[in-house]
Amino acid sequence: MNVPFDLAAYMRTVGQNARGAARVMAVADTAAKDRALLAAAAAIDRDQALLLAANAGDVARARAEGCDAAFIDRLTLTPKSVAAMSEGLRQIARLPDPVGAITDLNYRPTGIQVGRMRVPLGVIGIIYESRPNVTADAAGLCLKSGNATILRGGSEAAQSNQAIGACMLEGLRAAGLPQDAVQVLATTDRAAVGLLITMPEHVDVIVPRGGKSLIARIAAESKVPVIKHLDGNCHVYVDERADPDKAVRIADNAKTRRYGVCGAMETLLVHPAQAEALVRIAAIYREKGVEIRGCEKTRVLVAGARAATEEDWYTEYLAPIVSVRIVDSLDEAIAHIEKYGSHHTDAIVTEDYTRARRFLREVDSASVMVNASTQFADGYEYGLGAEIGISTDKIHARGPVGLEGLTSQKWVVLGNGEVRA
Amino acid sequence: MNVPFDLAAYMRTVGQNARGAARVMAVADTAAKDRALLAAAAAIDRDQALLLAANAGDVARARAEGCDAAFIDRLTLTPKSVAAMSEGLRQIARLPDPVGAITDLNYRPTGIQVGRMRVPLGVIGIIYESRPNVTADAAGLCLKSGNATILRGGSEAAQSNQAIGACMLEGLRAAGLPQDAVQVLATTDRAAVGLLITMPEHVDVIVPRGGKSLIARIAAESKVPVIKHLDGNCHVYVDERADPDKAVRIADNAKTRRYGVCGAMETLLVHPAQAEALVRIAAIYREKGVEIRGCEKTRVLVAGARAATEEDWYTEYLAPIVSVRIVDSLDEAIAHIEKYGSHHTDAIVTEDYTRARRFLREVDSASVMVNASTQFADGYEYGLGAEIGISTDKIHARGPVGLEGLTSQKWVVLGNGEVRA
Repeated sequence: MNVPFDLAAYMRTVGQNARGAARVMAVADTAAKDRALLAAAAAIDRDQALLLAANAGDVARARAEGCDAAFIDRLTLTPKSVAAMSEGLRQIARLPDPVGAITDLNYRPTGIQVGRMRVPLGVIGIIYESRPNVTADAAGLCLKSGNATILRGGSEAAQSNQAIGACMLEGLRAAGLPQDAVQVLATTDRAAVGLLITMPEHVDVIVPRGGKSLIARIAAESKVPVIKHLDGNCHVYVDERADPDKAVRIADNAKTRRYGVCGAMETLLVHPAQAEALVRIAAIYREKGVEIRGCEKTRVLVAGARAATEEDWYTEYLAPIVSVRIVDSLDEAIAHIEKYGSHHTDAIVTEDYTRARRFLREVDSASVMVNASTQFADGYEYGLGAEIGISTDKIHARGPVGLEGLTSQKWVVLGNGEVRA
Repeated sequence: MNVPFDLAAYMRTVGQNARGAARVMAVADTAAKDRALLAAAAAIDRDQALLLAANAGDVARARAEGCDAAFIDRLTLTPKSVAAMSEGLRQIARLPDPVGAITDLNYRPTGIQVGRMRVPLGVIGIIYESRPNVTADAAGLCLKSGNATILRGGSEAAQSNQAIGACMLEGLRAAGLPQDAVQVLATTDRAAVGLLITMPEHVDVIVPRGGKSLIARIAAESKVPVIKHLDGNCHVYVDERADPDKAVRIADNAKTRRYGVCGAMETLLVHPAQAEALVRIAAIYREKGVEIRGCEKTRVLVAGARAATEEDWYTEYLAPIVSVRIVDSLDEAIAHIEKYGSHHTDAIVTEDYTRARRFLREVDSASVMVNASTQFADGYEYGLGAEIGISTDKIHARGPVGLEGLTSQKWVVLGNGEVRA
């Protein structure tokens, strides 16, 4: 956008239009929303070449600006990732519509019936970085949950995002839904973010998707509630009474399945009785090139392990590095997780009923697991169908956030002329 | 507190102590929490004379400072209101413990079971004005829901609040629970509020109780999520097909049962077909001394009604005043509510199935009602047992907030050694 224009006025207009569209979306038929999603998916499939061309332009500019390989990787669309986008929208169309669902409608002694109806949040602002597929994913989830969306992607992905946004608009048009229900900002001015997060009159919630520093900055400056995802410093505790085979399998998968995901284990806590299992796990890590940083006791058992520093216990590596600590009891394990963890996802491996029960109750994390890999922490794996993100907050939404997390509940009261005494 | 001291250091200590207590409270037995509530109730009953004496001191000071009658009324404790406080705590003890409840624990295709466990929010800051009973009510609800509380009452109620706080501490002590689970701030310095709402590391949520200006200010300045209650500009729409008797009964009760509550109706919307019902309603209002401010058409039907201004439609009177407008259709009624309302509580009176269904779905308010008085908008009436307040937000909690609103849900995953593919 080289045309000079009044950014504040533009953002106000975007906000007002979103608010108007949100009112229509809130009462839109399930069938209309699904038609919009399917038509958008069809448009994406049809326009694959066009999307790839727009993306190629973005990628060329990003390369010219010297963006690093990981960044270029996240930015790049392929025929496969474009197909995944349209398939994602079709999946969202197949999910049950959460809006309007009435639950717990019970009679009260006064004669009135009281229940709750699920309703959209209203206008959702999505702020994201290089991945253009967020444009379709996030817009699709917001659309299905009856919300209007304002999307603010990274400037490097501007053309890709506009092209995907055009497909979403085509879907809305085909279904007779308001165009302003999905607005991809027509500016890459960084000041737009500052305006978006300070218009509580037009925006009901902000979902930032991207690096920790982006999210922390938005959370600090926002005047609108933020569904945010910060650290994922996850733990697996191999208890005295763990089945060693399960311990080895889980410690392996939790660390090495994918290193860069927030549900990846970063610290392994091991009871001294499980020294043998630890040696087996360490052998797997060594074979897979995972660097081990251990406490003193660990280093006695695991040859070649570097000494872990205090800083290591706090660190979310998102890399082939693991810190390992021998802890003498469940209490010590829970205390370690409480002190160093980030309340994201933590697991115990044990066959002991009471310790499993205690771990579930006492560990204050968004996901607590018994005998399962921390890498299961994911909306699809949890049965949400899709996720807009993983919340590390406690208020409103915790852990993977799907369609339900984009809604609220209002109270419904059905009476027959009752009045309050 | 005339002793000079380091307020920031004091607040940090309070916050840290609350955080420590919250960890213990989160895993406290239901029985221990109930014992604490019952012991606190017993202490309040036993100390009734002491509480009344402390309160008499507060009241005398408030009078000397020239506080108005309504303020003094809210500040004053009586034997009856002290008994209501202890009975309130006993009621909370009888409510089911929300903490630890696991719901929707379902098997996934991978073999893991995924469900959700209800957990406390952590540390809850309560900021309130003159009513000392909030000290017991709010602390009791937070205690039962496994949270630690920091209470910051009005400076005029300082002695009353400290005396009630001492009873709460006695309850915690009797049950072997941490003293810091309920902390009544030992300072009336106004700067304490500013510190309390900007310590997200120690405080998880703020619940302000009091006037709109207090709440708006806290919401604007808080760095911690706020469960807030702003306007209650509530409507009743008497539809073309309303049962006139129900319409009269509801319009009467919704306005006149109590004028000062947030669920009181402020604007009555009437279909022209219900002119007769309006005349009957107006007669009741006149008899009860309720001033009517009407649109032009209303003034033709209701002799002596003043002309309503545009400002009237926006106004939450909380007084014996009502604005009345004739609207030609459900659409017009909904548009009026959308434009002027505050999304608190709105009701339709109708025998028409489709219009009732549309009103429930389309009106975006915390409570939507059919053929019932808006004054039912209350945690007790809705079956929550007790309420810490009524939220006008959409995020996290909407409408009356009880024990459940003071909790969140974490995910629990039960496996048998499963790993993610």
